[in-house]
Amino acid sequence: MTCSIKKLQQKLRLENMDALLVSSSANIRYLTNYEARDSYLLVSPKKSVFITDFRYLYEAKKNLKGIQVQLINGSLFKTIANIAKALGVKNLGFETRNLIHAEQQKIREELDKNIGFLPTVDLIEDTRKIKTPQELRKIREATKVAVKALQFAKKILKPGKKEIDIAFEIERFIRLDYGCKISFDIIVASGPNSSLPHHITSKRKLQQNEPVLIDLGADFQGYKSDLTRVFFLGRILPYAREIYDIVLAAQKAAISEIQAGIPIKDIDKKARQFIAQKGYDKYFGHALGHGIGLEVHEDPHIYGKSSEKLESGMVFTVEPAIYLPGKFGIRIEDMALVNKEGSEVLSGNLDKRI
Amino acid sequence: MTCSIKKLQQKLRLENMDALLVSSSANIRYLTNYEARDSYLLVSPKKSVFITDFRYLYEAKKNLKGIQVQLINGSLFKTIANIAKALGVKNLGFETRNLIHAEQQKIREELDKNIGFLPTVDLIEDTRKIKTPQELRKIREATKVAVKALQFAKKILKPGKKEIDIAFEIERFIRLDYGCKISFDIIVASGPNSSLPHHITSKRKLQQNEPVLIDLGADFQGYKSDLTRVFFLGRILPYAREIYDIVLAAQKAAISEIQAGIPIKDIDKKARQFIAQKGYDKYFGHALGHGIGLEVHEDPHIYGKSSEKLESGMVFTVEPAIYLPGKFGIRIEDMALVNKEGSEVLSGNLDKRI
Repeated sequence: MTCSIKKLQQKLRLENMDALLVSSSANIRYLTNYEARDSYLLVSPKKSVFITDFRYLYEAKKNLKGIQVQLINGSLFKTIANIAKALGVKNLGFETRNLIHAEQQKIREELDKNIGFLPTVDLIEDTRKIKTPQELRKIREATKVAVKALQFAKKILKPGKKEIDIAFEIERFIRLDYGCKISFDIIVASGPNSSLPHHITSKRKLQQNEPVLIDLGADFQGYKSDLTRVFFLGRILPYAREIYDIVLAAQKAAISEIQAGIPIKDIDKKARQFIAQKGYDKYFGHALGHGIGLEVHEDPHIYGKSSEKLESGMVFTVEPAIYLPGKFGIRIEDMALVNKEGSEVLSGNLDKRI
Repeated sequence: MTCSIKKLQQKLRLENMDALLVSSSANIRYLTNYEARDSYLLVSPKKSVFITDFRYLYEAKKNLKGIQVQLINGSLFKTIANIAKALGVKNLGFETRNLIHAEQQKIREELDKNIGFLPTVDLIEDTRKIKTPQELRKIREATKVAVKALQFAKKILKPGKKEIDIAFEIERFIRLDYGCKISFDIIVASGPNSSLPHHITSKRKLQQNEPVLIDLGADFQGYKSDLTRVFFLGRILPYAREIYDIVLAAQKAAISEIQAGIPIKDIDKKARQFIAQKGYDKYFGHALGHGIGLEVHEDPHIYGKSSEKLESGMVFTVEPAIYLPGKFGIRIEDMALVNKEGSEVLSGNLDKRI
């Protein structure tokens, strides 16, 4: 049994819950180091049961130690209800943020009436916010690959090449040279395309004297990285340099504030106020960053409305940006770890000079 | 406004519903030819509103004609409630199979108490089961690319090559030679790996005198294909040939039954009984097939418990299989369209001889 399952079992006792039905695949992986499509995990203080279908049965049995693997017997919902009954569960929790409404209704229908089926929020996500040393090792590895990929990307940029071809070459580098998956579709946004915060890499050809924004990440054993750099082909126009310097300084200001105990909203505010002083706040419409680990976007969300404080062991992106519609956009994204000294920029050895 | 929105508006009138909150991104794409992450569509007889955040605002406005684009104003849930109120909605439907439990609860909290918030099932999915001529054109294109990709795959197989390298070469072919996306991670399963129905492509090297199962699909303008072939390197062992012939004959038997008006379960039964007669039914554990279109797996589900009948315009996979644990597996998967003559195998010109 994993440490994370033990932690969850303790939490369940505190919440007076007999078991939790885990439906988020990232949470299942966190608890078991394994996941499969359309599969569920029921964790009780006595034992844990992985519920899956024919497709993943052999694989699940091979990968899961100390966890019972239950084949779905006709109906998924009945199978869950039967397991709960067999374990003598009186109060079964479910993940309200990770369960589809129809499934919640159908499981409720199948459960014995005297069994409570209770919404829980972030029971596992809250633990996941603080990374363990094993998790950090994997995140560092994923970050290292992303750093290498951006260094590689810089070398292959050339006017006339298409965005999709660049993205594909980078993907080949991550997948074949490093044996990692990509953690999301690589964004290559050239010229005016860089002004779209989530541009879909297109057939547009790179042009001389234009910025090229590249946003990418690697997946190392389930753990993700996410970094963005803007490169310039040929001459850097003075306006682009001015915007670049503002974004870079905003990021630096935000990172220097990172420290355990500081309200998260202050980090967002620091970058946003800096950009506002320069008159560009209305061109920075998204949050400053997001937690990252088993999911590319996970808690903690780094934004102005956060009511949380930073804690040692949190890992998140810091990605201020200025998007000038129809012209160009600059986003600089690094990953920071909160530690005893303040913070460590995990992508630290990746150059930001232009 | 698209035809599919008009059809939905008629359905809403029949169901006495004033509006539907569409949360499935495939459904949103079906209605608007556009989709974006974390975005919603509210369709009422009067008008349709696309609800999105800063990231997709410009893109959405550019792509959506005749549909209002509403920026999320602070809270997504409040924004939805405000739109419903402004439109005078009394009964708002939601998609119970596509909405997360927590979101359903929060929207309910924000809606005026006199507004009903009602679960709906498959309102749009039911329409999507019957493909329009425009959809068929796109599915044919996606299938053509998958056929070419399998023909290409056959040529590059060689003992000593790794599964992941083969998969990557095929992906390059689909993405760069044909400008399509892949519709799911390509499966290359060699030797005993082919006995895992959903093997994850590994670093295993192909070996002489072994089967190699390849399962792939292309995505053309949002529409998917999904085909599987098993190739043999070197000599085909008699046992493998025997199993191959059974699976192929089972597929042929099932396809010959396809006709509008026939119960779907009969198609599944036909293949399953054939395999059972040969004594291998316990090695064919999944459904015979699945509908395909904007999603790789969509309605109609082709399985023994179906209560539906085939209708002209349905498109689905026919993929009988026999998996011999630890030895090898054979799956042959094609895509069929129900038409006036019975059926058309969309991947028809792809050879199955070994």
